[in-house]
Amino acid sequence: MTSNAYSLEVLKKVNLTAAFNCWLGFEIIRAEGGEAELRMPWQDEATQYAGFLHAGVIGALIDTACGYAATTVAGPVLASHYSVNCMAPAVGQAFVARATVARAGKRQVFARADVFAEQDGELRLVASGEVILVPVDSPAAKVPSQA
Amino acid sequence: MTSNAYSLEVLKKVNLTAAFNCWLGFEIIRAEGGEAELRMPWQDEATQYAGFLHAGVIGALIDTACGYAATTVAGPVLASHYSVNCMAPAVGQAFVARATVARAGKRQVFARADVFAEQDGELRLVASGEVILVPVDSPAAKVPSQA
Amino acid sequence: MTSNAYSLEVLKKVNLTAAFNCWLGFEIIRAEGGEAELRMPWQDEATQYAGFLHAGVIGALIDTACGYAATTVAGPVLASHYSVNCMAPAVGQAFVARATVARAGKRQVFARADVFAEQDGELRLVASGEVILVPVDSPAAKVPSQA
Amino acid sequence: MTSNAYSLEVLKKVNLTAAFNCWLGFEIIRAEGGEAELRMPWQDEATQYAGFLHAGVIGALIDTACGYAATTVAGPVLASHYSVNCMAPAVGQAFVARATVARAGKRQVFARADVFAEQDGELRLVASGEVILVPVDSPAAKVPSQA
Repeated sequence: MTSNAYSLEVLKKVNLTAAFNCWLGFEIIRAEGGEAELRMPWQDEATQYAGFLHAGVIGALIDTACGYAATTVAGPVLASHYSVNCMAPAVGQAFVARATVARAGKRQVFARADVFAEQDGELRLVASGEVILVPVDSPAAKVPSQA
Repeated sequence: MTSNAYSLEVLKKVNLTAAFNCWLGFEIIRAEGGEAELRMPWQDEATQYAGFLHAGVIGALIDTACGYAATTVAGPVLASHYSVNCMAPAVGQAFVARATVARAGKRQVFARADVFAEQDGELRLVASGEVILVPVDSPAAKVPSQA
Repeated sequence: MTSNAYSLEVLKKVNLTAAFNCWLGFEIIRAEGGEAELRMPWQDEATQYAGFLHAGVIGALIDTACGYAATTVAGPVLASHYSVNCMAPAVGQAFVARATVARAGKRQVFARADVFAEQDGELRLVASGEVILVPVDSPAAKVPSQA
Repeated sequence: MTSNAYSLEVLKKVNLTAAFNCWLGFEIIRAEGGEAELRMPWQDEATQYAGFLHAGVIGALIDTACGYAATTVAGPVLASHYSVNCMAPAVGQAFVARATVARAGKRQVFARADVFAEQDGELRLVASGEVILVPVDSPAAKVPSQA
């Protein structure tokens, strides 16, 4: 863990500066020790043509949850790669993404997440994904050096 | 190509039924013969904490462009997997995604896409990705049989 | 689980018919209920230029372990996609791959695996990966209908 | 392009130091300007249970071809992630992998490759894949700092 690791309090402030996360209603439930949990309520405007949650929003949940998990051990990071498995139709009253860091190296952090649909208090696995993140000196440092 | 392949006209109607695509302002520029091009204008509300286009929106562009390319040869499909490479900061007046089907099988369609940021008429590659799509009998058929 | 799910005994016979698995020394330790464990001893001939286990062999471990895990619930399958994260140098006296099925659908089975390097009885995580498998009627059926 | 970019001559020497590449019979056909082409003859010992080229060997072709393409612009690199799409049965007298660098950054190089089966002089696309590579100061530097 680096000295610039993010706490839950800092992450909640960072989350509020991400317009898309606010629009989607992403709420950070937990973020500590290489793990993070994100929740979003159902949104009619976040659906694809058949009325399920859009795969892009599932990707945003995975990317964001893994990013937050990574910051708890590595400080500010940028996602350079992510993948999404859509395993079941994503419908529910809310969605929960649980992310875990598998390995935090100096150059790359590897994390993965499961996404669950929540209905009447029950969680059902609908997607999973992996993210590779690159630690950056500070958020402002990322523009010229992303890749 | 199957007999139920989608034309550009049909796709434009399908696109209007996807709430998230409408919210993002996705416009289908081209869709024919296993290829598709999608465009979205810059949106302040679609950004991450540093003001770049959110990686989830980049994923939505890739997923949607590849899906539309697939429908031109395979009819209705559902994405089961996609991956995103974020290669440069995604900032620009608009974004363009160009997708191509690599192989359309009976069970799976493989497609890939490049995403460009547009600024003053110039295109700059900022991301790429791959999508695996599963042909479905009809959009309504997908709920019980997605995986 | 389908009626044609493979048992450990059947899998061990299948494994012996895969020339590459035999050459690499893959041994099936466990295979049941959507899980499988594979082991291979160190092989000097399976290395890349710096003397680590070649990333292609890591991929073979992930692909094979996930495939075997999938057959325990879905019968014969073919891998259509896999990804590999190389998280640490792969050196050790042996390697162990542990795979789990995340979801077994009719059209696609999603599985993932961790790969460990074994040294003096200790396991160290060196890689992970994900595999998408397509159930096939029988191994012989796969030629014309793979995708 | 960095000053330590590899030439075809250097790469051919590096290739000879990779035991697995030698065992598989990998031959570098071309490597320059962010592109590389690799060829391997059919090998009975490199097959899976149904007699096709093992998916792990397809991964080795993609990983190696992309790695060589990357070294022509970035010098020594290590693969940290790769993905493989198995689009058609891999059978033929030989296999050809063609890799291209999409973006070479300071921290990560993104490359992709197509794999063709060669039969009687004809090439048929059987697989594709993507690789993320991390530039390293020297091959020997990679052990402690891979991730």
